[in-house]
Amino acid sequence: MPGNLIGERFVTMSFGESHGTCIGAVIDGCPAGMPLSESDIQKELEKRRPGQSAVTTQRMEPDKVSILSGLFNNLTTGAPICMIIWNKDSDSRTYDTVKSVPRPGHSDYTSFVKYGGFSDYRGSGRFSGRLTATFVMAGAVSQKLLRHALGIETVAYTKQIGSIRLEEIQFDDARKNRYTNDIRCPDNEVAKKMREAILKARRDGDSLGGIVESVTVGMPVGLGEPIFSSLESDLSKALFSIPAVKAVEFGSGFAGCCLHGSENNDTFYKDGDKVMTRTNNSGGILGGLSNGMPLVIRIGFKPAASILRPQRTLNLVTGGEVELSVPGRHDPCVVPRAAPVVESMISIVLADHAIKSGHVPAVLNG
Amino acid sequence: MPGNLIGERFVTMSFGESHGTCIGAVIDGCPAGMPLSESDIQKELEKRRPGQSAVTTQRMEPDKVSILSGLFNNLTTGAPICMIIWNKDSDSRTYDTVKSVPRPGHSDYTSFVKYGGFSDYRGSGRFSGRLTATFVMAGAVSQKLLRHALGIETVAYTKQIGSIRLEEIQFDDARKNRYTNDIRCPDNEVAKKMREAILKARRDGDSLGGIVESVTVGMPVGLGEPIFSSLESDLSKALFSIPAVKAVEFGSGFAGCCLHGSENNDTFYKDGDKVMTRTNNSGGILGGLSNGMPLVIRIGFKPAASILRPQRTLNLVTGGEVELSVPGRHDPCVVPRAAPVVESMISIVLADHAIKSGHVPAVLNG
Amino acid sequence: MPGNLIGERFVTMSFGESHGTCIGAVIDGCPAGMPLSESDIQKELEKRRPGQSAVTTQRMEPDKVSILSGLFNNLTTGAPICMIIWNKDSDSRTYDTVKSVPRPGHSDYTSFVKYGGFSDYRGSGRFSGRLTATFVMAGAVSQKLLRHALGIETVAYTKQIGSIRLEEIQFDDARKNRYTNDIRCPDNEVAKKMREAILKARRDGDSLGGIVESVTVGMPVGLGEPIFSSLESDLSKALFSIPAVKAVEFGSGFAGCCLHGSENNDTFYKDGDKVMTRTNNSGGILGGLSNGMPLVIRIGFKPAASILRPQRTLNLVTGGEVELSVPGRHDPCVVPRAAPVVESMISIVLADHAIKSGHVPAVLNG
Amino acid sequence: MPGNLIGERFVTMSFGESHGTCIGAVIDGCPAGMPLSESDIQKELEKRRPGQSAVTTQRMEPDKVSILSGLFNNLTTGAPICMIIWNKDSDSRTYDTVKSVPRPGHSDYTSFVKYGGFSDYRGSGRFSGRLTATFVMAGAVSQKLLRHALGIETVAYTKQIGSIRLEEIQFDDARKNRYTNDIRCPDNEVAKKMREAILKARRDGDSLGGIVESVTVGMPVGLGEPIFSSLESDLSKALFSIPAVKAVEFGSGFAGCCLHGSENNDTFYKDGDKVMTRTNNSGGILGGLSNGMPLVIRIGFKPAASILRPQRTLNLVTGGEVELSVPGRHDPCVVPRAAPVVESMISIVLADHAIKSGHVPAVLNG
Repeated sequence: MPGNLIGERFVTMSFGESHGTCIGAVIDGCPAGMPLSESDIQKELEKRRPGQSAVTTQRMEPDKVSILSGLFNNLTTGAPICMIIWNKDSDSRTYDTVKSVPRPGHSDYTSFVKYGGFSDYRGSGRFSGRLTATFVMAGAVSQKLLRHALGIETVAYTKQIGSIRLEEIQFDDARKNRYTNDIRCPDNEVAKKMREAILKARRDGDSLGGIVESVTVGMPVGLGEPIFSSLESDLSKALFSIPAVKAVEFGSGFAGCCLHGSENNDTFYKDGDKVMTRTNNSGGILGGLSNGMPLVIRIGFKPAASILRPQRTLNLVTGGEVELSVPGRHDPCVVPRAAPVVESMISIVLADHAIKSGHVPAVLNG
Repeated sequence: MPGNLIGERFVTMSFGESHGTCIGAVIDGCPAGMPLSESDIQKELEKRRPGQSAVTTQRMEPDKVSILSGLFNNLTTGAPICMIIWNKDSDSRTYDTVKSVPRPGHSDYTSFVKYGGFSDYRGSGRFSGRLTATFVMAGAVSQKLLRHALGIETVAYTKQIGSIRLEEIQFDDARKNRYTNDIRCPDNEVAKKMREAILKARRDGDSLGGIVESVTVGMPVGLGEPIFSSLESDLSKALFSIPAVKAVEFGSGFAGCCLHGSENNDTFYKDGDKVMTRTNNSGGILGGLSNGMPLVIRIGFKPAASILRPQRTLNLVTGGEVELSVPGRHDPCVVPRAAPVVESMISIVLADHAIKSGHVPAVLNG
Repeated sequence: MPGNLIGERFVTMSFGESHGTCIGAVIDGCPAGMPLSESDIQKELEKRRPGQSAVTTQRMEPDKVSILSGLFNNLTTGAPICMIIWNKDSDSRTYDTVKSVPRPGHSDYTSFVKYGGFSDYRGSGRFSGRLTATFVMAGAVSQKLLRHALGIETVAYTKQIGSIRLEEIQFDDARKNRYTNDIRCPDNEVAKKMREAILKARRDGDSLGGIVESVTVGMPVGLGEPIFSSLESDLSKALFSIPAVKAVEFGSGFAGCCLHGSENNDTFYKDGDKVMTRTNNSGGILGGLSNGMPLVIRIGFKPAASILRPQRTLNLVTGGEVELSVPGRHDPCVVPRAAPVVESMISIVLADHAIKSGHVPAVLNG
Repeated sequence: MPGNLIGERFVTMSFGESHGTCIGAVIDGCPAGMPLSESDIQKELEKRRPGQSAVTTQRMEPDKVSILSGLFNNLTTGAPICMIIWNKDSDSRTYDTVKSVPRPGHSDYTSFVKYGGFSDYRGSGRFSGRLTATFVMAGAVSQKLLRHALGIETVAYTKQIGSIRLEEIQFDDARKNRYTNDIRCPDNEVAKKMREAILKARRDGDSLGGIVESVTVGMPVGLGEPIFSSLESDLSKALFSIPAVKAVEFGSGFAGCCLHGSENNDTFYKDGDKVMTRTNNSGGILGGLSNGMPLVIRIGFKPAASILRPQRTLNLVTGGEVELSVPGRHDPCVVPRAAPVVESMISIVLADHAIKSGHVPAVLNG
């Protein structure tokens, strides 16, 4: 498959460019008989919409979704669901230099080589963070399917910005509070410090990276198709598709690698009929298969590459070195808007696996 | 696709069980006209062979490969290459309890549920680390193809065991020295400390985890198929298929997420005709595409789950809690044998992408 | 993959419903640097447009295409190309009975069962012949790519209507004359008889089937991926996706099966440097691979299932038998409008194979 | 995917060469908990085994299957099932000329070009009819799965040899009698005439083609994934993968195309609770979906290309024309041995679709 498709039984295709006519997503393989409306999608889109705060880009996009196919009487039909957002507030003028002067840390140079100079470089084209709105459209359908059919729910939030880290948090608190501030960190005190760090970076013409943590509850046992489509395999593949992601870990992650087996193993016990583990260092996955405990994933986002502060780079046409300052309406930190994107990509993968393993019927009951 | 296949144009299928008749791999999509012999495969298999040292399992397997198809006059033909290792030293007696008493941290419980109790549980069956020998068989072919057609070479080594970490190392030193000790750490002094930590864990009836680092040189620009088959996406998918892997990061990874853009961005310059970056915090990947700099990846392995030290678990038949001590010939630390497996999985992905993007012709010149 | 995707490296996704908001196609995997405009697509759409003649449906659709993504400066960029047609002249009133009274020969009954009654039954929804316009959109891009990069051209025409059959015809005549009449039969005398047969069937409240023949010239040697993706395999898969197709044969086809090897084998000779065969009973495919001779395929279309003449069927709700007369604006014979659809599906497959086998570069020269 | 894989959830990979070490098949995606033994496979292999009659090749291969993986306690485990046949009676001497002098009607020329002269040409290598034994191995597993889980059964038989055609036959007679003679034609009188025609062709140093007909009963309603994975699409793809197949038709096929809709439409009625059609011109498929009626397919096999009678061809090295007489142990007609191969390919497709659409659970009950 070319790169704009993900999934095998529940397939998402993304299309569109940052500064083109529109951006969109098509889902093929959604079971028939599921209630779905544009407001289901819109609700999720609002969570990642730009222009909402001082810590994000000032591009003002209404990001209003239209569902073009796949629905009949407000129910899915089993046919492909095409969803689209028409681009409104695209300002292409500031991107003209990008064509020949690649921004450090950006896709400009590699995409120029791969596509022979023919790619749409305006606003990074296909490589723009704006395309994550297409992930959220597909993610909204996936989340609805998972909730509707299986009671699965994914909750992602800002875990770290720069060096400021949220300590362990209860799932219910994270779920309830993660959208109470513009940092999407469920602890408002921590969020305040994170905001200050981001604003300072912005003032300095700089950017900051961070970490999103995600917890998924309601998991059945046995999702995943070892060896090569283990749950970690397919989740990481989807998460590394999000621009700026450079690190992914499950459960105790890298820290768990410094431990002994006796410390890191999760021992089994029974809670009524349900098999549980006392700790969850595995992050809910054993042998590449879900074990029924919450999925716990942390995803590292590098600092945004576009910064005002001057950087050395090349002019690809002249071959000489130049100094580049990237103006424009960039996010000084992409993490606050990444939480709904992470929730979406995880849900897209889980929906696919749930269908593949027979946990979701081909037809729902309307 | 079910889970035992990886790749799209250069496809690897893995089959066999730890204590069954054999283990094997079939590659479909290898270009015709490449010299290949069993010794090419055997050489790589030797690197991960068990029974070579006090720090690994004492299971003695000769792991002698036979190529059953796809060769004619010592050259590939374009037909599927089936490679097989007959199992010799399988001791199934010690695994009888596994059937009903799942080992903490292992796939026993999840595979039992997923396959309805029908999976071959002897020596963990399909979930055994032994199956990584099938990755190495396919990896050996991939590595040969990448070297032969493109001059790409991947070098992986032990970066950390428990809390003992190898500091930054020159690529040439890593390449030259990584197999000079049984820890596969290119610095013999560090390796000595790592060995002591592993042996202490073994004496304590315990295990240790660690980190493998991998560097790939000779990369062309533009491998990767954004959005969803970005190079990070497909590499991480393959790496998380290795048993015990719980974390993957590229370039500066999680640490880079604490930095500012001005610190983490790699600035471009020219070295003769070649576009380079002064630092390599991106790990050789920008926008999901290779940028020609070395690929740098770190892969975290959890401590081996099978330990002699008693642990609490459940008897799935009686439903009661029991204490379990896992005897048998387990690796106290899987990291020393993981380096060739990591090299293999990375090479399998790069071979597939190199073919997909047209960097490797359909027919080589013999 | 779910059913609305075809291809592996050059992938087409079809979406939309006959009486929904729109119909559309997205292509992922088209090389960058190919000139493309809406008029390239529109030109092909005109060939299958309904409402053009007494022998086709009277539904009047302008079928005006919009390209929503994947172009920049009138060139492909390597990004997905989304193309859309907004539905205008949909008259859903006559389809209300279909819901519970399945038309004989139609998808009504099977789609009702498969999608649990949730499918959009208006105008047959996803099963409508109207969806072949999405094939033509993707086919137009494929044809342009094949012509542009390889000089491949596919020419399809009406070979038989009812019992009236066009005898053997020269390729150049077929190419030149196939659109000179509304039957799309390159011999105007034969076309006249075919038209009479169709009009008689219409007067009788009946329909007629027929055969389309297709010839592709400019083929390179070696397209096809035996065993299971032989050229016949993938072409037939695509052709049987066209509604009403029930038979496909290559070269001498079924008739060749009555012959001896000495009669059916095509002997080789050389025309300058080019290896040719004196006859072309193989239809240009040997061992599942193109041999450089013209591809020759015949595709049988059953008579249109929707007829005015009363037929026995069931009321699925009441369970009783009823008599059904299907009113509406149906084609009395789908064959005249099928030629461009056949050309499209063949081109979609050849584009995919040409890319897979390395005959088309990843980037064209603009 | 490269060409040696078929299926998406129930995947078959074929490997091996006619005159290499072995031939084999691996199935990934077979549900756990199905009883399976080597005798299940062997029984099907016997039906296509060469050397059984005067009408087939005299190559004597025992074709003894070994199952190398995927079974535990005589039940499937959900892991890949690798099956192998070691080649015994391979006589490569007679194939030396093939290297530079391509046989008319054969894959010699096209495979030489595609694989750059590196393919294993001995006995046609991967293109040999012998490889259909790998289809039968996978088909035997598929047939068992379909019978075991769904009660589906496929019965194929010789319908025509040269100009001698079996008239319509009852399904029960076909099932009972098709293996009572070496022609695999369920009518012994017709079989006798067919045998005479084949023997005459052999005496003349020639070969004959023919048609296999296949009927599948026990079909559920709704198998198939329109548009592009319609049941006809995927069945034809699989059937055209069989060497020598040049034509496929469903139900009334090409003949139905000469009819009017009122003649070809199958009217619905109810037999108890089951929806049936009075005729079965659709061959059991409406809208690309199974309708519960028997699948009826006819598959045309061209006359075997290897004939003793001299033919004109080229010497690819010298460039000159030569006369070629193909000696060796060829089938004068492949049709008698094709019936089990057809049954296998149909079953492989139906197993895949049955799993995809949820008609087969992920775990059977042992």
